[in-house]
Amino acid sequence: MNQTEPRTLAGFMELLPSEQILFNQIKAKIENTYQRFGFLPLDTPIIELSEVLLAKAGGETEKQIYRFSKGETDLSLRFDLTVPLSKYVAKNYGNLSFPFRRYQIGKVYRGEKTQKGRFREFYQCDIDVIGDGELDIINDAELPSIIYTIFKELGFDNFTICINNRKILNGLFESLGQKENATPILRVIDKIDKIGREAVIEELAKLGIQKTEIKTIMDFIEIDGTSNEKIEQLKKLDINSEIYAKGIEELKEVVNHIRLFGVPDTNFKVDLTIARGLDYYTGTVYETFLNDYREIGSVCSGGRYENLAEYYTDKTLPGVGISIGLTRLFYKLNELNLIQVKQHSIAEVLIIPMLEELEKPIALATDLRKLGIKTEIYLNSKKLKAKFKYADKLKIPYVIVIGEDEIDNHVVTIKNMETGEERKVDLEANKIVEILKK
Amino acid sequence: MNQTEPRTLAGFMELLPSEQILFNQIKAKIENTYQRFGFLPLDTPIIELSEVLLAKAGGETEKQIYRFSKGETDLSLRFDLTVPLSKYVAKNYGNLSFPFRRYQIGKVYRGEKTQKGRFREFYQCDIDVIGDGELDIINDAELPSIIYTIFKELGFDNFTICINNRKILNGLFESLGQKENATPILRVIDKIDKIGREAVIEELAKLGIQKTEIKTIMDFIEIDGTSNEKIEQLKKLDINSEIYAKGIEELKEVVNHIRLFGVPDTNFKVDLTIARGLDYYTGTVYETFLNDYREIGSVCSGGRYENLAEYYTDKTLPGVGISIGLTRLFYKLNELNLIQVKQHSIAEVLIIPMLEELEKPIALATDLRKLGIKTEIYLNSKKLKAKFKYADKLKIPYVIVIGEDEIDNHVVTIKNMETGEERKVDLEANKIVEILKK
Repeated sequence: MNQTEPRTLAGFMELLPSEQILFNQIKAKIENTYQRFGFLPLDTPIIELSEVLLAKAGGETEKQIYRFSKGETDLSLRFDLTVPLSKYVAKNYGNLSFPFRRYQIGKVYRGEKTQKGRFREFYQCDIDVIGDGELDIINDAELPSIIYTIFKELGFDNFTICINNRKILNGLFESLGQKENATPILRVIDKIDKIGREAVIEELAKLGIQKTEIKTIMDFIEIDGTSNEKIEQLKKLDINSEIYAKGIEELKEVVNHIRLFGVPDTNFKVDLTIARGLDYYTGTVYETFLNDYREIGSVCSGGRYENLAEYYTDKTLPGVGISIGLTRLFYKLNELNLIQVKQHSIAEVLIIPMLEELEKPIALATDLRKLGIKTEIYLNSKKLKAKFKYADKLKIPYVIVIGEDEIDNHVVTIKNMETGEERKVDLEANKIVEILKK
Repeated sequence: MNQTEPRTLAGFMELLPSEQILFNQIKAKIENTYQRFGFLPLDTPIIELSEVLLAKAGGETEKQIYRFSKGETDLSLRFDLTVPLSKYVAKNYGNLSFPFRRYQIGKVYRGEKTQKGRFREFYQCDIDVIGDGELDIINDAELPSIIYTIFKELGFDNFTICINNRKILNGLFESLGQKENATPILRVIDKIDKIGREAVIEELAKLGIQKTEIKTIMDFIEIDGTSNEKIEQLKKLDINSEIYAKGIEELKEVVNHIRLFGVPDTNFKVDLTIARGLDYYTGTVYETFLNDYREIGSVCSGGRYENLAEYYTDKTLPGVGISIGLTRLFYKLNELNLIQVKQHSIAEVLIIPMLEELEKPIALATDLRKLGIKTEIYLNSKKLKAKFKYADKLKIPYVIVIGEDEIDNHVVTIKNMETGEERKVDLEANKIVEILKK
């Protein structure tokens, strides 16, 4: 037969089963945390009408979109979970309760240049809180506590949630007469970690900003100290702007409440260089870094936006959200050996029948399953050695052997595959479960 | 602002949060059952190279494929989970343990004509057991016990797993000298429930089959009785074909072992009219019907195939699998009122603060979450009435009110939103959890 080479597209993650188990465990931890904070699940289509998905046109993202026609219809694959959320909230406004707190974990698509560690299909794990007309600033303080809970659950201690407020930056630029330049200036500032202080100054100069103003900008973003000290210093700067004052007030409120939500000062800080490259955010912004592995970049980002769905509805829907790019995070953590496959099988027990008549082994499998034990029964006629090799390769924790002798004596042999220890136990599911649980 | 109407494509399911909770519960029951039988998880890309995905070309399916180019690359969205599995097993052959038992739950895409209850994006929930070179027939008996467990878990009693073996049918046709006609004959027989006996006879005649042979075919598929009686009658027919005899032997073995796997005779039967429209299956075939709602069609189908991945590898990889089309199943069960939304919120508790200072309410929320209670705290300054209305609308089971009085007296008021019952409890997470669990 004419055969095709079986291959998977570059930029598309496809894992071996043991890695997939690990991936799913991390995904489940994120989902469980989102649920523990009471967020509602959502699952929107991966394909949308291009007209709807690209209502807010332009930008880098659009070039990366998977867009195509089916019949007469112009379709696109979603490139994030925020635009589908906007559509969803605008469409279902009358059927939702506000604040609408939803999580969504799903695949999104961006046809980026393929390179190591960059994915064209990847999971985003998002939560957003959407208000109807208004949304209290305290919501902005709850989200960091969710980030904190997740990364603690994943086994990390040394991470920092960096927080800033776009209003402070925008107010600063306004007071410097650089309001029109705010977006390009923010873009430059955002790169300070990547390109360094001098390059930022150079790029600011290229934007036509005068030396004295550049100095003010640099002084500003280099304000140092604890989160509270930074806020105090911000207040002392001679900047005459209402929006600046509003930003400081919001930031202060967020910082105070983050502590109430149980996030220690060792895991968050005010960072005035965090701006997020997007034009989208209007208030609080977040980025999260694993301090020992800053090269990974932000592992969880987000922020506050003024109006979620202005391209679809007249309703004013302010919101705040965060997103974890799980596929890339998993890849990086794996590459850095920060996560390890510990579980190779779903089955906790493999039953190996050593006789022709399968009645008893099958009945035991059924009983164990009813008692909640994930049980596999080896159903193929192979030599005992081959059966054990299978259990070994899959690292199934326990093997139960049932042969003629065992049935005659109403016992089974349970082998702990890690220690090699064997013991005989009554052929009764309840008793076997007791042993397994010990 | 120029606005776009927020709309979702026809044939794409998008649920309200309470329906989504129900959908996810059903999905989780299926996944948990697959895991209880020890199947490994898999998650393959939704996009594949067209050359790979369509290696086995032709047929109805290909017309429905979402196929497009990105740059120079010819891409397609997967239309089932079996072809990606074939590719995966062929590609990762050396890294897998056989029998390879995997489950996959994911979205697939078929650009069918849109009509009520038909979806272009839908979840398939698949399991397959793949052997390396060979796979014992007993595996074919385990899968019905998984179907049985799932539909019992979903609350159904009156369903029937129909079982047949393609070899019996093929052997019959061979003995009638209709071997070349086997596939078209099977297609016609497969429609007997839809079009009726007379129409089947007519269509068989149109295929050029003689009256006497049509009579034999009809006698054959109308063999009646219990599963065992049917098998006995099959044996007695004067059909001289090795493959026919082999099919009866396999079917007998499957039926005997299904009982050992705990499926009662009330929930399965031999049905000689089940052929599955696909050319793919070579032995055991399954279809599952809810007897009171046969109009839904089969809710879980599958079967045995000789060679999973012949288009990608020379390895012989026989397998047996089943698939549940979850999106359609959910739609139909919902339409027939066989499932009902009972849970409208993920949060089990809503904390309503009645004071300016949020320290205590937030601390309580954090404590409850640590104790595993899914907790939301109402963070927006609204009137008490509006806050309760929110809890009401989302049907959050319990509301905890904390005001100045409560804090002074170190108590909270817990309201059971279903019964309206209120009680005061010490402001201590442990004690509150005790009350909630009662």
